[in-house]
Amino acid sequence: MEKLRSITALILLLGVSLSATAQTGKRPVRSPGFPVDVLIDGGTIITMSKDRSVIENGAIGIRNGKIAIMGSRNVFIKSIRAKQVIDAKGKFIIPGLINTHTHVPMVLFRGISDDLDLNDWLTRFIFPAEAKNVTEAFVRAGTRLGLAEMIRGGTTTYCDMYYFEDAIAEETKKAGVRGVLGETIIKFPVADNKTPAEAIAYTERFIKRWQGDPLIVAAAAPHAPYTVSTDDLRKIREQSDRLGSPVITHIAETRKERDDILAEYGKTPAAYLDSIGFLSDRTIAAHSIWLTPEEIAIYRERGVGSAHCPQSNMKLASGVAPVPAMLAAGVAVGIGTDGAASNNDLDMWDELDTVAKLHKLNTGDPRTLPAEEVFAMATIGGARALHIDDITGSLEAGKRADIVILDNDSLNQTPFYNVYSSLVYSTKAADVRTVIINGRVVMLDRRLLTLNENAIKTEAFRYRDQILASLNR
Amino acid sequence: MEKLRSITALILLLGVSLSATAQTGKRPVRSPGFPVDVLIDGGTIITMSKDRSVIENGAIGIRNGKIAIMGSRNVFIKSIRAKQVIDAKGKFIIPGLINTHTHVPMVLFRGISDDLDLNDWLTRFIFPAEAKNVTEAFVRAGTRLGLAEMIRGGTTTYCDMYYFEDAIAEETKKAGVRGVLGETIIKFPVADNKTPAEAIAYTERFIKRWQGDPLIVAAAAPHAPYTVSTDDLRKIREQSDRLGSPVITHIAETRKERDDILAEYGKTPAAYLDSIGFLSDRTIAAHSIWLTPEEIAIYRERGVGSAHCPQSNMKLASGVAPVPAMLAAGVAVGIGTDGAASNNDLDMWDELDTVAKLHKLNTGDPRTLPAEEVFAMATIGGARALHIDDITGSLEAGKRADIVILDNDSLNQTPFYNVYSSLVYSTKAADVRTVIINGRVVMLDRRLLTLNENAIKTEAFRYRDQILASLNR
Repeated sequence: MEKLRSITALILLLGVSLSATAQTGKRPVRSPGFPVDVLIDGGTIITMSKDRSVIENGAIGIRNGKIAIMGSRNVFIKSIRAKQVIDAKGKFIIPGLINTHTHVPMVLFRGISDDLDLNDWLTRFIFPAEAKNVTEAFVRAGTRLGLAEMIRGGTTTYCDMYYFEDAIAEETKKAGVRGVLGETIIKFPVADNKTPAEAIAYTERFIKRWQGDPLIVAAAAPHAPYTVSTDDLRKIREQSDRLGSPVITHIAETRKERDDILAEYGKTPAAYLDSIGFLSDRTIAAHSIWLTPEEIAIYRERGVGSAHCPQSNMKLASGVAPVPAMLAAGVAVGIGTDGAASNNDLDMWDELDTVAKLHKLNTGDPRTLPAEEVFAMATIGGARALHIDDITGSLEAGKRADIVILDNDSLNQTPFYNVYSSLVYSTKAADVRTVIINGRVVMLDRRLLTLNENAIKTEAFRYRDQILASLNR
Repeated sequence: MEKLRSITALILLLGVSLSATAQTGKRPVRSPGFPVDVLIDGGTIITMSKDRSVIENGAIGIRNGKIAIMGSRNVFIKSIRAKQVIDAKGKFIIPGLINTHTHVPMVLFRGISDDLDLNDWLTRFIFPAEAKNVTEAFVRAGTRLGLAEMIRGGTTTYCDMYYFEDAIAEETKKAGVRGVLGETIIKFPVADNKTPAEAIAYTERFIKRWQGDPLIVAAAAPHAPYTVSTDDLRKIREQSDRLGSPVITHIAETRKERDDILAEYGKTPAAYLDSIGFLSDRTIAAHSIWLTPEEIAIYRERGVGSAHCPQSNMKLASGVAPVPAMLAAGVAVGIGTDGAASNNDLDMWDELDTVAKLHKLNTGDPRTLPAEEVFAMATIGGARALHIDDITGSLEAGKRADIVILDNDSLNQTPFYNVYSSLVYSTKAADVRTVIINGRVVMLDRRLLTLNENAIKTEAFRYRDQILASLNR
């Protein structure tokens, strides 16, 4: 095993050295050494690559936003010339976590209404609170708050669905976070667009604006099969084909949705969506709880990515998604927190722990979803579900440098016997130390570098007071 | 409401002032003011008293280990003379959390074997690891590690079942933590006692030794109805009657246990235990998953306290305890983490969040177990389940000062609309700042005062290496 790891490291080293030589045409003379922007020195690298290699006493060199070189520290460290060195000795180094489903600005509604019937929750609190408060400025403030919480918890990529998504993209880019961001399309008037046609025109501009961006993937986000017409769903699929952009939606979140769609179209939700040609290998489907085995096969055939949000699904009593069956069928499944109004946080670590435990209970088998598989869902699996696994989700030379450095000796992690067990069952958001996204250090030793935490909190409490006042009017 | 709170504060103030005068015989002259050892100044006090009063801008004076005075800060702060003042302005002040079920030294086995069949887990890993490693020194090291993690997470009382429990009591007392601590009685030879008779003799000495201690309640802990004979269970009940000591046990954790007991005795576990006269209002029963409605009624009639451990029950696929039914029947239900080998931590905040969400899912009703009810389970409910609610579990004048001061403005808590929602769904162990147990400050501003964190970690990793070596032998 140790030998295998060293050989892997050597191969990586040689591969990179050769390409470096090829690029420059000759070895650099005046300042010897392989130049990198950031060097992560030391630590245990949990790669989540195909062979699931774990490199002890490793190092990673980052150049132009990508992992340029990676392997056993002692093999290549002396040949590196780095602008910035981050000491990770005694730490875990993991691919950044991928939160596959959020409504990020809703963090401003965190805990505004809990423990209610779903209909009460939406109609008495969430919809009125949104109608009275959601503006572009609100969305920006909520996004900054959510981004700060996500970075602190080691999330480097998230997939969102909300209003004013272009503003969310701007805030996300400024904070240096990777996002697959979908503008909501829904059949009733909302804060930014009054009709689905307006929303589809918005997504057209929005997607085109961000094409080629290193961090932002812009998308359309038709809310759900019961809130968007068949005709509009077809238009959205056409737009996605034309622009090569993802489509984010909710599918089969509740039993009622399943029953209603079945009554209206004679088919269950995913079967109906497939019958109208909506599903593709650019679709990202949140929840997917009430799926038949035939619909799981449809996800697999069409290449639909699945975003599993167990804590939201538990809190709203929606049900348990058939995750083991989806994984067995070869569907790409990632993990999401959902919006903080129904969770009530954006903490992926809590969510991992819940995924691992919930499906053991639900299947009656404690061997279901072992820790390593759950950690894969939160990283490379999430990247696959978002259709961006070519650039992120694992630590491999050539991929974007989306990297998290973790403590592994806090009391709640002590002792550890297995890295995946420690990550899934014992590690907390507070154990995240340093976060790098696309090669940029956005948190160093728990200090946020791209966001002003105090200003964000002050603004959040100001909005809280405004929201409370608006609901009492 | 505000008026009610002020009046409550005044009554508390007057009650205490009068008794202070009565004690001293006259008002102090030279140093005027009501003397306290510790004053918690400012903050929102979430009392968990019968009327669930929440005191904004409150203060608490602690004297001789008890809450001597409590109420609105501005009403009485000037009349206080304190040896130590802890500034809690802008914080939450809550009763310390009560972890109603642990096997604390097993924290040294954290993550040693996950995602296994229960039988494999026990027979291939836990039992061999215990047989080869559990000594009194091991138990002391594990206890210190567990105590440090619990204090950091705001747990002030825990209920334990393990071997060498007298050593656990000594370590617990030294760390200043409150414990209801049970020595295991089981029908096969274990590390400290080779027979149940030896173990019962041990508990006799153990219980007598700690009688009258302000922190430690010593107990017998017969492992389960399937691992202790009827005759020994009767002897343990007799001892408990004679010494007034609690009895801690596991009841109906698995379907197999229920079926086996039914096959052997013609009764389900709790009904069988009741039929032999084992259950009383000093019994503390962990898990209690496979209970019939009749057995819930038995718990209520006998005054059995129930320790609910949802994360362990999920991870081992044991099932979901009928908590809403128990609460509806008037059974005292607390929350426990179980041992860290099956969780894998001693974090009560994670457990609260899981309790609130799991039962919504399990009943299909998102109104099940609202946040306030779950927070009550973790505090006053836990105290009732452990039969110590006369001294702890809520913040009230006269009760022991088991108090936790929390941040309420970390990113994951921002903003908040409702204190109970914030506590149950958004607060993390890392938000705990200061912990006071029986009037003694054991953590101040996240610094442990009674335990050496670095020494504890070093020792834990030394045991980890020893355990790994022992399993490979």
